[in-house]
Amino acid sequence: MLMIPGPTPVPEKVLLAMAKHPIGHRSGDFSKIIAELTANLKWLHQTQNDVLMLTASGTGAMEAGIINFLSPGDRVLVGNNGKFGERWGKVSKAFGLVVEEITAEWGKALDPEEFRAKLTADTEKTIKAVILTHSETSTGVLNDLAAINQAVKEHGEALIIVDAVTSLGAVSIPIDELGLDVVGSGSQKGYMIPPGLAFVSVSAKAWKAYESAKCPRFYLDLKKYKKATDEDSSPFTPPINLMYGLQAALQMMQAEGLENIFARHQRHTEATRAAMKALGLPLFAPDNAASPAITAVAPLTVDAEQIRSTMRKKFDVALAGGQDHLKGKIFRIGHLGFVCDRDILSCVGALESTLQSLGYSDVQPGAGIAAAAKVFAN
Amino acid sequence: MLMIPGPTPVPEKVLLAMAKHPIGHRSGDFSKIIAELTANLKWLHQTQNDVLMLTASGTGAMEAGIINFLSPGDRVLVGNNGKFGERWGKVSKAFGLVVEEITAEWGKALDPEEFRAKLTADTEKTIKAVILTHSETSTGVLNDLAAINQAVKEHGEALIIVDAVTSLGAVSIPIDELGLDVVGSGSQKGYMIPPGLAFVSVSAKAWKAYESAKCPRFYLDLKKYKKATDEDSSPFTPPINLMYGLQAALQMMQAEGLENIFARHQRHTEATRAAMKALGLPLFAPDNAASPAITAVAPLTVDAEQIRSTMRKKFDVALAGGQDHLKGKIFRIGHLGFVCDRDILSCVGALESTLQSLGYSDVQPGAGIAAAAKVFAN
Repeated sequence: MLMIPGPTPVPEKVLLAMAKHPIGHRSGDFSKIIAELTANLKWLHQTQNDVLMLTASGTGAMEAGIINFLSPGDRVLVGNNGKFGERWGKVSKAFGLVVEEITAEWGKALDPEEFRAKLTADTEKTIKAVILTHSETSTGVLNDLAAINQAVKEHGEALIIVDAVTSLGAVSIPIDELGLDVVGSGSQKGYMIPPGLAFVSVSAKAWKAYESAKCPRFYLDLKKYKKATDEDSSPFTPPINLMYGLQAALQMMQAEGLENIFARHQRHTEATRAAMKALGLPLFAPDNAASPAITAVAPLTVDAEQIRSTMRKKFDVALAGGQDHLKGKIFRIGHLGFVCDRDILSCVGALESTLQSLGYSDVQPGAGIAAAAKVFAN
Repeated sequence: MLMIPGPTPVPEKVLLAMAKHPIGHRSGDFSKIIAELTANLKWLHQTQNDVLMLTASGTGAMEAGIINFLSPGDRVLVGNNGKFGERWGKVSKAFGLVVEEITAEWGKALDPEEFRAKLTADTEKTIKAVILTHSETSTGVLNDLAAINQAVKEHGEALIIVDAVTSLGAVSIPIDELGLDVVGSGSQKGYMIPPGLAFVSVSAKAWKAYESAKCPRFYLDLKKYKKATDEDSSPFTPPINLMYGLQAALQMMQAEGLENIFARHQRHTEATRAAMKALGLPLFAPDNAASPAITAVAPLTVDAEQIRSTMRKKFDVALAGGQDHLKGKIFRIGHLGFVCDRDILSCVGALESTLQSLGYSDVQPGAGIAAAAKVFAN
């Protein structure tokens, strides 16, 4: 039972779709699939912008989102309050961008006012882009995208480039309404399919920036993907079987409806957080910046790795650990994608049992389940 | 029935392996799979060099093979006798390399002496790499890798970077024996699995070049993959289900044995070519440069697209068409990967029937099958 922030649980329907024999990717039948996927991806992204599919991990999508629209020497603001924010700084530097980081402690949200201050001070309009992670997978923090985007819009020139890898499909990201320029995501998250596909949505403003952007690129050159997608095709051989899986997954998502999907993720976050509080386990991210995809928990007196190990051995529940300096200090419960209310109860129940067997003394038996159930009852 | 040069037919065992639910890619169980895959990939590559797995199309592997070992301004020789040779010239130029092309007409092999002449004249050792496509998928030509490599070895300084996308697993490429520095390939070919995974083998000499190579890179930075692979891990989320498929496919390949696999591909090339000759259909590549993966045929009086269309509609056999200026002029029969003798007979039989129904008058009924059967009988 996967309760990690990716790969997330995959529905049987998707697994069986992936087991179909591939057809030729240059055939008319496959063009029809690409057309369907593109239309449904736009629906999921709430946008009329191009949404392009890459054979890559999420990092490939974000790299594409950065190098296609910027040039070496360009000044960019990068939000960094976790492992992934840190990574976009590294990608930007690898391609010669001049990076100014806006940081927050791991576990805290980025402060939109810090972005606003930098952007307001930039009267010469030298800031070419603001790059940030929406849901910081390493800490379970959801950054305030709308507020930061507002500051970018007041600036008027800078692009906004968003890592939505663990937020897309979990929380509403109205791309057109907000005017987000570049949004990257990956298949093994809210999409409910295994890893191997990545997605980038690109605005008209970003395409304009593409024309003068000079970072070198070929495999991740998004214009090639746009040209092919416009013809219901792909520039390079696409991962056909993953796309069969995506087709099934997007059909399931359409049947559920966006509002229901977002409400389900919100409910799972609330139930999980309520349960942790009832068990006396400190939450790593504050209530007002809680990711709908993942809840990070910082147990006070028991090693987080010991909890993970017991959960896996006794209950076959996989939780994620802390990354880098948080290893052993936190564990992370993924509740992203194909997760139902029962899964949350299973996980909380297994955790209660694990804590008792590890001698975590402050736990009132049943308190976690009671708290989660209360959320579900409302 | 796929008789195209990729995606190639996928065994049921592989499809079912891919339908397993993913496990966490940071788990001990998945590390064991990575360790097994890495060992078996080295076996398939006949090398002790690193063999790295990327979430990408074959083009991603080749781009990685180029940008990790070279710097803008570096002089490279690129062999170009088809669509893929042409592509490596474009990739090289996109990253600022100074490209000198050695060309041959599409359908002809590259001349090793042209490489030797350039390399011998380079007494200053300014040529940093020779980049070539082994089996040119667009034309069915197998370039003389051993002879070109010999010229590179006489030069002594240049790296040799090889696109083996449609040759690896079809014809012997003794990487260590030849001293090939970088060899790229893709999953939907000889590997018998769907597209989405790409592979690069890297020699010690190439790693030395890496240290001073300045092309910018992050997602395709091979050192990240080497570091992770050495720890039975991956730098970014890998395509778990495709790796389940790869595990099954490599086990099947080990059971068949390298010599048997190569002999099978050689037999299929010979049978296909004998059949085409018996049917009076001109072969696009000469006998001494015939790809073991694909046979390109240039019908004289009937449009190649009409043949493809009839083959698909009447017999559900998918053939590949000509690319770029060859569209309509040739069709291509893929016999790469999971293909058995019976498949060749099926394809030839369907082609004979198609030619008759299209009024291709010179065909002696049964001649193609007779010729193929003779190859199989010997």
